Amino acid sequence: MSTIPKSMHASVLTPELEVRVVECSTPTPATDEVLIRVGSVGVCGSDVHFYREGRLGDFVVEKPMVLGHEAGGTIVAVGSGVDASRVGQRVSIEPQRPDLTSSESLAGRYNLDPSMEFYATPPIDGAFAEYVTIQSHFAHTVPDTVSDDAAGLMEPLSVGIATARKAGITVGQRVLISGCGPIGLVLAQVSRAYGASEIIMTDLDQSRRHTALQFGATAVCDPRTEDVTGLGVDVFLEASGAASAVQAGIRALRPAGTAVLVGMGASEVLVPLPVIQNRELTVTGIFRYANTWPTAIGMVVRGLIDLDGLVTGHFGLEQVREALESTVLPGALKSMVVPAQK
Amino acid sequence: MSTIPKSMHASVLTPELEVRVVECSTPTPATDEVLIRVGSVGVCGSDVHFYREGRLGDFVVEKPMVLGHEAGGTIVAVGSGVDASRVGQRVSIEPQRPDLTSSESLAGRYNLDPSMEFYATPPIDGAFAEYVTIQSHFAHTVPDTVSDDAAGLMEPLSVGIATARKAGITVGQRVLISGCGPIGLVLAQVSRAYGASEIIMTDLDQSRRHTALQFGATAVCDPRTEDVTGLGVDVFLEASGAASAVQAGIRALRPAGTAVLVGMGASEVLVPLPVIQNRELTVTGIFRYANTWPTAIGMVVRGLIDLDGLVTGHFGLEQVREALESTVLPGALKSMVVPAQK
Amino acid sequence: MSTIPKSMHASVLTPELEVRVVECSTPTPATDEVLIRVGSVGVCGSDVHFYREGRLGDFVVEKPMVLGHEAGGTIVAVGSGVDASRVGQRVSIEPQRPDLTSSESLAGRYNLDPSMEFYATPPIDGAFAEYVTIQSHFAHTVPDTVSDDAAGLMEPLSVGIATARKAGITVGQRVLISGCGPIGLVLAQVSRAYGASEIIMTDLDQSRRHTALQFGATAVCDPRTEDVTGLGVDVFLEASGAASAVQAGIRALRPAGTAVLVGMGASEVLVPLPVIQNRELTVTGIFRYANTWPTAIGMVVRGLIDLDGLVTGHFGLEQVREALESTVLPGALKSMVVPAQK
Amino acid sequence: MSTIPKSMHASVLTPELEVRVVECSTPTPATDEVLIRVGSVGVCGSDVHFYREGRLGDFVVEKPMVLGHEAGGTIVAVGSGVDASRVGQRVSIEPQRPDLTSSESLAGRYNLDPSMEFYATPPIDGAFAEYVTIQSHFAHTVPDTVSDDAAGLMEPLSVGIATARKAGITVGQRVLISGCGPIGLVLAQVSRAYGASEIIMTDLDQSRRHTALQFGATAVCDPRTEDVTGLGVDVFLEASGAASAVQAGIRALRPAGTAVLVGMGASEVLVPLPVIQNRELTVTGIFRYANTWPTAIGMVVRGLIDLDGLVTGHFGLEQVREALESTVLPGALKSMVVPAQK
Repeated sequence: MSTIPKSMHASVLTPELEVRVVECSTPTPATDEVLIRVGSVGVCGSDVHFYREGRLGDFVVEKPMVLGHEAGGTIVAVGSGVDASRVGQRVSIEPQRPDLTSSESLAGRYNLDPSMEFYATPPIDGAFAEYVTIQSHFAHTVPDTVSDDAAGLMEPLSVGIATARKAGITVGQRVLISGCGPIGLVLAQVSRAYGASEIIMTDLDQSRRHTALQFGATAVCDPRTEDVTGLGVDVFLEASGAASAVQAGIRALRPAGTAVLVGMGASEVLVPLPVIQNRELTVTGIFRYANTWPTAIGMVVRGLIDLDGLVTGHFGLEQVREALESTVLPGALKSMVVPAQK
Repeated sequence: MSTIPKSMHASVLTPELEVRVVECSTPTPATDEVLIRVGSVGVCGSDVHFYREGRLGDFVVEKPMVLGHEAGGTIVAVGSGVDASRVGQRVSIEPQRPDLTSSESLAGRYNLDPSMEFYATPPIDGAFAEYVTIQSHFAHTVPDTVSDDAAGLMEPLSVGIATARKAGITVGQRVLISGCGPIGLVLAQVSRAYGASEIIMTDLDQSRRHTALQFGATAVCDPRTEDVTGLGVDVFLEASGAASAVQAGIRALRPAGTAVLVGMGASEVLVPLPVIQNRELTVTGIFRYANTWPTAIGMVVRGLIDLDGLVTGHFGLEQVREALESTVLPGALKSMVVPAQK
Repeated sequence: MSTIPKSMHASVLTPELEVRVVECSTPTPATDEVLIRVGSVGVCGSDVHFYREGRLGDFVVEKPMVLGHEAGGTIVAVGSGVDASRVGQRVSIEPQRPDLTSSESLAGRYNLDPSMEFYATPPIDGAFAEYVTIQSHFAHTVPDTVSDDAAGLMEPLSVGIATARKAGITVGQRVLISGCGPIGLVLAQVSRAYGASEIIMTDLDQSRRHTALQFGATAVCDPRTEDVTGLGVDVFLEASGAASAVQAGIRALRPAGTAVLVGMGASEVLVPLPVIQNRELTVTGIFRYANTWPTAIGMVVRGLIDLDGLVTGHFGLEQVREALESTVLPGALKSMVVPAQK
Repeated sequence: MSTIPKSMHASVLTPELEVRVVECSTPTPATDEVLIRVGSVGVCGSDVHFYREGRLGDFVVEKPMVLGHEAGGTIVAVGSGVDASRVGQRVSIEPQRPDLTSSESLAGRYNLDPSMEFYATPPIDGAFAEYVTIQSHFAHTVPDTVSDDAAGLMEPLSVGIATARKAGITVGQRVLISGCGPIGLVLAQVSRAYGASEIIMTDLDQSRRHTALQFGATAVCDPRTEDVTGLGVDVFLEASGAASAVQAGIRALRPAGTAVLVGMGASEVLVPLPVIQNRELTVTGIFRYANTWPTAIGMVVRGLIDLDGLVTGHFGLEQVREALESTVLPGALKSMVVPAQK
């Protein structure tokens, strides 16, 4: 077992939107927590949003905070209530701390607990750091066939699984996905694993559409030149955040179809309500995930999902700014921050 | 058994938006149909809309058509494939003719059959007439304790039942209903029957709010002066068609709550999508109903629902224009057309 | 605030099946617990079973233990992590201690957590005592309109609610209930509240059948002389534990109907499997409850359920043996133990 | 278009349990029907049962009847209400004639319609004949990549799909299947397509267990020597009809797991009801299928299911007896009757 230093390095975003590495105390695991040496952390769109805007919805960066919530690593210490044999396990982190006694948690929807503390959501720190803590039950063991990157990317895969469950995707369904970014590519793979027979994807960017064909799309189209509204799909998954995509996708559904909104967009969007009514559509969204990690890990181990193939760059702690900037570069899909590379 | 005349009277709406009584052939029941002498027919908002605008969505009045689809009456003849003992039965009409071999019908959603023929939806005639036909299985027998008016109003009650099922209303839930018109009042009664513990209703009109308290509302409020968005209700039922009501109602839902859009409004409405996402709300609508009549009749027979109390006026065939105009009069709730009174 | 004595009295059942009052230490609430002065505790069939047999299934009385798990009372002290303002609240106790971090609990089924500690299930003590502790979130506040007896009987009511949810009872359904004991009477009331239009109950005992008519049954019958198998009910709730009732009830279901087994009977029963197959029946059971208390309390407050009317006797701590013996007396329904009466 | 002869050959089973070919009138399609020249028909266990016993449950062979209900072929004529362009289409037959106006059918459960007429169920004739009729909507077009045998075997595949839907099989679940006969092998393939991560199969016969590994089983075991009751699987599918398999499979389920009974066995079986109760298991069965054919055809076209690989013998009309006898031969899986080979 490695010695744990008393201080560590972490990358913080300041209220002035500067990104810098600071030295701070290594966290101490609480009774029911484990301490994890972070191996790899994905850069999420929400991290980029905080970096560019200093806020996301009602959450505002008011003091230096650590970004990053798609993280895998290795347990190096445990709290007094945790089995010491966990030390040394490689894990994927489910980056949330719900109050398990709330009514939402007791009902199986712990992701909707109003007192949730979530990584990298002000004022809670995330994982662009050498060490983090999480409650033991949310440090999910992964086998050695799962890379550190893939351990981290179980988080966006969990978004995909939560989406597929909400949409009720099953064998033989036709699915429309708007947006061929990292989440769109995860949704395509997850849709395929849940049995979708057709996966039609849209994106403005030709290169991204091309990539989508490698990750499960059976057809791709440019929404500016091709009209999807007559498709009559069973399921529409929105992963672009664009209002026009929401509108077209809802119109593309068959009677009794389901739309799940995954991408974050404008605070209000014009929605064709009579279409929802006349076809009895279901429109819903997902907010993170609950009870997805065991399924996610199993899917990766079985080879149903390729997470490593999404990674297009690795960055050390000193390069977090570059990592945050990298997501808009041509060909970039998923950038990973590797704290140990500092 | 009464003699059936070869011709009958019906009230038609012309493309020029005139309402007049015409003499026409009494319809002949097809093999699987029954012929019904119409007893009473409710005036629905959609009838009024056709009368005022000459269209509703994509449906346009292009030739004289008969309005009215909330109808009860008595079977006076049957097609060759129907048991003759049905003659004389008092019935409530389920006013739709789906293709039962379509994939939607076979899946139990016959209301969503794309080839549906529905009463009073161009070019299909409705029930403001002395006689109508319907397939035998959609002529639902009612006991004599159910009035002709109530037999007709099983139709809006079916809308309410379809809504409650879609919303999943169950014991102990808190329900917000926007709109205290006839459908709102049906929804209130149905919500109570399905176990709702609180039924909060909104309307701009004080008199309608007052009436709502007599039909099941546990509280009423004026949406201009009272903010409902903090209520955290389990279910929101929209029965006003107002965009502002849609927006407020969605914001009023608790995490994992459900909104069902019943009232018809604008073709596009600004909707707060991040609220749907962050709370994982379900937003859906209903399009008529399927498999509701036995439940509806049972509820009325058991006294769970008061339909007769909604009736505020009766009109003969020659008074259909007055009936259509009457719905906006102070105190008016439901106007009934009684063809035999002509 | 009352002074809490260091020692208290409790009634224990010994491995030799003797019942006696002992003096023992008053329990100290853990960090997340409250200490409750017990007001009233219902005698459950499982208590009687332990008293007569010394075991129930795999659970064996191996050392003196306290029975009773249907309890209400008043919070008199709180653990360090609980808001002190709870002291003085009258509460109904949800008598279980699941591990909220188990996969079953995280999925919303904390009643199925395999490491559950449940009141009055060896080796866990129950509530036939002056004081008990429970985690704060499972001490559910009741208003003063709810009696101590009713606070205790929220537990069997919760069994009824869990059953109704599992059965999917809704407006207009026809329900068959076998067994007119206390649980049967709760099931009848709950079925009515969930909208059942017919509630047919069976029992061998005429007096119990008569009582059932006062608690919601719309018809009763003696299963020895009346055959229920042709009823075609939507839902069958088994509350007698008799094999013959299981068999008849399954045969009484309509296609796609649901049976929920509530009463505990033999370890193996002959079941007509082809009936389950040919009608696509669903046969399931309930094991306690999850997320039922808020609904239960609301139902009692609204007057939908009469719990006080089930109580036919009160017994002090010194009379627990008499209480356990009382349940088979003519006319007895629910016996309550009132520790303060000692 | 081929000329249709006025008479045809069919293989009948007599009440004396003789099998012989007779000449009879070629059926005439009713208004909504198509006439199909039969290409290939699978031999089902129920056919064998009628052949051996002269009855199945309440259905008795009282006059010569045609067996066979797993049939594909080519449309050669249509009724007056059917689009003539269907002539020449290769189709898979959904061999049931429900009353689509019954309450079960209207609710989407047409397989449970009590007035169902089903192929090869006395007194309804089946498909061991040169020509059969079926309503147009139940003659499902297949592409030329689907063989006649596979067109016929869409029927047992539909049983598998109905089972998977009832069981709710989804990504990552562990499934136990008892019985490695043709239905077991279909269930294994279907379970894999619906995402099961483990498929454990049992059979007394070593050769059948070996075959199962080629059709999707991830593990097989001999139930006489290996105990499955500790597996804790999510889903148990019973396809052997053996009482011991039912009992072991129920005990093998995790809390909240689901058992679907597919194989037909004894009229009464000893079932461990406390296990169902204490784990809140769901036990149900399937009776044929509804709305499965489009999914079935799509699965075969996509290569998710291998039906041709199940076929181990072809027999002409004169060889129906041999076909019925063949199913118990070593190595036999599915025998097909090919009427045109007569």
